[in-house]
Amino acid sequence: MTVKLGHNRYGKAGVRLVRVVREGPVHHLKDLNVATALSGDMEAVHLTGDNAAVLPTDSQKNTVQAFARKHGVGEIEEFALLLARHFVGAGRAVHHARVEIEEYGWRRGGPHSFVRDGGEVRTCVVHHDRDGRTTVVSGLKDLVLLNTTGSEFHGFAVDEYTTLQPTTDRILATAVTARWRHLGESGDHAASYERARSCLLEAFAGTHSLSLQQTLYAMGERVLTSCPELCEVRLALPNRHHFLVDLSPFGLDNDNEVYHAADRPYGLIEGGVLREDAPDAGFAWE
Amino acid sequence: MTVKLGHNRYGKAGVRLVRVVREGPVHHLKDLNVATALSGDMEAVHLTGDNAAVLPTDSQKNTVQAFARKHGVGEIEEFALLLARHFVGAGRAVHHARVEIEEYGWRRGGPHSFVRDGGEVRTCVVHHDRDGRTTVVSGLKDLVLLNTTGSEFHGFAVDEYTTLQPTTDRILATAVTARWRHLGESGDHAASYERARSCLLEAFAGTHSLSLQQTLYAMGERVLTSCPELCEVRLALPNRHHFLVDLSPFGLDNDNEVYHAADRPYGLIEGGVLREDAPDAGFAWE
Amino acid sequence: MTVKLGHNRYGKAGVRLVRVVREGPVHHLKDLNVATALSGDMEAVHLTGDNAAVLPTDSQKNTVQAFARKHGVGEIEEFALLLARHFVGAGRAVHHARVEIEEYGWRRGGPHSFVRDGGEVRTCVVHHDRDGRTTVVSGLKDLVLLNTTGSEFHGFAVDEYTTLQPTTDRILATAVTARWRHLGESGDHAASYERARSCLLEAFAGTHSLSLQQTLYAMGERVLTSCPELCEVRLALPNRHHFLVDLSPFGLDNDNEVYHAADRPYGLIEGGVLREDAPDAGFAWE
Amino acid sequence: MTVKLGHNRYGKAGVRLVRVVREGPVHHLKDLNVATALSGDMEAVHLTGDNAAVLPTDSQKNTVQAFARKHGVGEIEEFALLLARHFVGAGRAVHHARVEIEEYGWRRGGPHSFVRDGGEVRTCVVHHDRDGRTTVVSGLKDLVLLNTTGSEFHGFAVDEYTTLQPTTDRILATAVTARWRHLGESGDHAASYERARSCLLEAFAGTHSLSLQQTLYAMGERVLTSCPELCEVRLALPNRHHFLVDLSPFGLDNDNEVYHAADRPYGLIEGGVLREDAPDAGFAWE
Repeated sequence: MTVKLGHNRYGKAGVRLVRVVREGPVHHLKDLNVATALSGDMEAVHLTGDNAAVLPTDSQKNTVQAFARKHGVGEIEEFALLLARHFVGAGRAVHHARVEIEEYGWRRGGPHSFVRDGGEVRTCVVHHDRDGRTTVVSGLKDLVLLNTTGSEFHGFAVDEYTTLQPTTDRILATAVTARWRHLGESGDHAASYERARSCLLEAFAGTHSLSLQQTLYAMGERVLTSCPELCEVRLALPNRHHFLVDLSPFGLDNDNEVYHAADRPYGLIEGGVLREDAPDAGFAWE
Repeated sequence: MTVKLGHNRYGKAGVRLVRVVREGPVHHLKDLNVATALSGDMEAVHLTGDNAAVLPTDSQKNTVQAFARKHGVGEIEEFALLLARHFVGAGRAVHHARVEIEEYGWRRGGPHSFVRDGGEVRTCVVHHDRDGRTTVVSGLKDLVLLNTTGSEFHGFAVDEYTTLQPTTDRILATAVTARWRHLGESGDHAASYERARSCLLEAFAGTHSLSLQQTLYAMGERVLTSCPELCEVRLALPNRHHFLVDLSPFGLDNDNEVYHAADRPYGLIEGGVLREDAPDAGFAWE
Repeated sequence: MTVKLGHNRYGKAGVRLVRVVREGPVHHLKDLNVATALSGDMEAVHLTGDNAAVLPTDSQKNTVQAFARKHGVGEIEEFALLLARHFVGAGRAVHHARVEIEEYGWRRGGPHSFVRDGGEVRTCVVHHDRDGRTTVVSGLKDLVLLNTTGSEFHGFAVDEYTTLQPTTDRILATAVTARWRHLGESGDHAASYERARSCLLEAFAGTHSLSLQQTLYAMGERVLTSCPELCEVRLALPNRHHFLVDLSPFGLDNDNEVYHAADRPYGLIEGGVLREDAPDAGFAWE
Repeated sequence: MTVKLGHNRYGKAGVRLVRVVREGPVHHLKDLNVATALSGDMEAVHLTGDNAAVLPTDSQKNTVQAFARKHGVGEIEEFALLLARHFVGAGRAVHHARVEIEEYGWRRGGPHSFVRDGGEVRTCVVHHDRDGRTTVVSGLKDLVLLNTTGSEFHGFAVDEYTTLQPTTDRILATAVTARWRHLGESGDHAASYERARSCLLEAFAGTHSLSLQQTLYAMGERVLTSCPELCEVRLALPNRHHFLVDLSPFGLDNDNEVYHAADRPYGLIEGGVLREDAPDAGFAWE
């Protein structure tokens, strides 16, 4: 039997970079987790261990750190673009670079003192190849939302294994992972992020929900209609079930007051919303 | 050889309780993780499997849920006291109850919509025994703080295994676990918590630090001098090392701008501060 | 702007199922984590909240549990196939089912007593659609391997950010995630799994490595040449760096004896190996 | 108000040390996680930031690494003793050292190739002070055990919040954390560990259980009666509940065949067993 090398890539993950900018006594902070992944002419290293085409993952890490010093870290999309373009440089075996960045938030506690904002993490994934194709996907994860009412679930399909009772008032809670694809590369990524994030929050809070799918679509639609610089949104919404506790054995009613927050199993709703005229995604989502 | 039963306790952990209070369209939310632990005349169950003295952990969980409905969940210290006193009731083999509660924060996103505040977790541990002794310890964990300057470390002991270079300017970062012991049981626990938390933040931000130990002491001292209802503070401060990256191989200086945030190993500084006249802690810290 | 629904699916994740089979006093145990995901005519629920086409995720969980009782759990691939075919049944809006199963290992400690085998987790992902197309991918994750010698890394590309020194003797360690695609659906999945797993272990231990990429390819190649029922292997190998500690400040040499096991950052090598005549993968890897 | 420094200690945690010993082509591997904690005359550093008495945590890490080279790593108890005695040396402000070590197991896969044994982790905690007092506690954690039968739970106390039904046949599962105190310091720690571990396994498998407390006591008693070098055992046994699934809505019985493995909440049973003549524990369990 003959075998061959399939798709492959390699890089450095978990590059935990903190960048400080000092404006006199007032300092600014960027706290990132960077992952790089390169692909290209990598047959030799896989088949014979010839490393001539392999830029070490250690060098990739060094590049991230050196670029943070030389160019600063602006918006994560811009820093990722800078790195991706660098790696797909002349004279190398690298045909394609993927750079993924997570940004952790901090609130100011003083001129040079900060408190970690433990909520959602801002994310981006940038692809760039030697043919000049570039894609930018921004997003967030770990944004945990909950509505105490305004959520129903009934009228669903019933088969022989269905025991779930319909409800017209339940808690709806989820931990949002959202990613959105940009039409272009440039723009005001800070403002775009804030706008998209606000849309997610508003659509979740403002949608009277008949199903988590409906809420998902409303969230994606709101982002796209408010952010003309974007063309596609993908969402993964685990349904963090909150079960109303049966207190009747203790002579107590429970009119949507006491819930058990369950861990597993959980529903998982995944879906995309895109503009009718969205260009082909190419490798954007890889 | 003769063996005997030593100290023991049993209970339910991980009771994830969400309590909603509805004021018309405006809802309020409490999100807790409760653990109960009982001890008393438990020789029989250990030695012979006679369960007559054992109130099932399932019943303890039911009690937590039913009490949330009957009495509401006010401040977690009060809810824990209520539960602990109940378990050490007449006619039972339970001599001692320990109730531990974690509270997860949520920010309001609408009248009945909430966004999880992913920062620190508020905690309490209450003990109560059949002799009427009661202790209340409040606290927090996962409060991550960072100063970009105002931290030095030099003049330390040097032995044959010391290679660390002294520094007069470093990042100081930590994830605070703090617990503080109350003199009494009652009082305004919400206000007390906010005051103690603010003291921790202010002392961390405001102390020019010559060592993390010094900062720890300053944090504990600030809490005690500002909160007369408290008599002891215990802190565990992991030193989240941020190493200045050596960029000289790339012809770049690095004047406290680019850091690597390391995971392991990490320094761990633990210490307590207490009032000179603090009463004996008894079982408060168990 | 007009927007539309993109790819979507929904299901139940984290269904933690334990199945006991009793042969007189000797019991057998299967310990699984099952996730189902269905897709099909789901426009209505997303756009209007009409749930008529939605089989609740709760019903999917019930089905997993009921099928475990009715049909037993044999090899996880077979159980996944059974479930996937069921969900894509007549009269439903479901066009496509994806079933993913993790199996946790236990060693026998007595006729009905077991000790959790904390090593690797066996996995599978099965797809089935209403056109009768079926794909089966088996695999494992969390298989941690380490060679104390027989690993070199030199001759790599050097750019202006490269400071890594070449080495002819290093520790090579990784946590293997491997998945392999079957040519067909049926067969002896237990024997196939054992054979593939052995190939991974043998190729890792037996390859004198000039790079982790070379080891990766050798592992995939070994699986394919030994398992004619398979046509493609995909591997993700994090490079768990072990750094030789510099003990020279203490007057000690360190001839590959004392290492620091680092957490982050880490190299990440991903790659596939496939038969020249491998059929198109279709949705197998989704 | 006057405040003072309470109990304190400081050290390095998460020192991930891998030690290789080469016997020609056959290599041996020790994989450890070491934490050191020192206490002594530390008023000055806390109150004024004077570090003269502070041996940096970085030096403690260096010492662990250098000692691994100089003395090798035998049994973890011996390595911990060596380190603890070193830190409480002449001329330093250190009065007391606590060294905690976790050891991760590996199975041999070749002369110099290893497969991580993902099961339980071996542990020890050693204390040593300047008055020559020394305590040694060995143990393990993450040992997951399950009996499919031979476990009952009935005859328990019933109060107004009890709804649990008695059972005469249930799954009993737990993740064992066990620690045992040695009478002395020296001895064959490898053999002692194996003997204690076997006792835990045998007592769990061999005890017809009327409660998890009974099983806990049987496990501790078995260790003490089989290991005369030990005087006390402490166990923490989370009750990993496996709930029998109600399949009657689907016309199926479920005679202890299909279970849901639950995450939270869980029972937590903690208890100690000790010899009647056990000496005072001193600081052994801190």
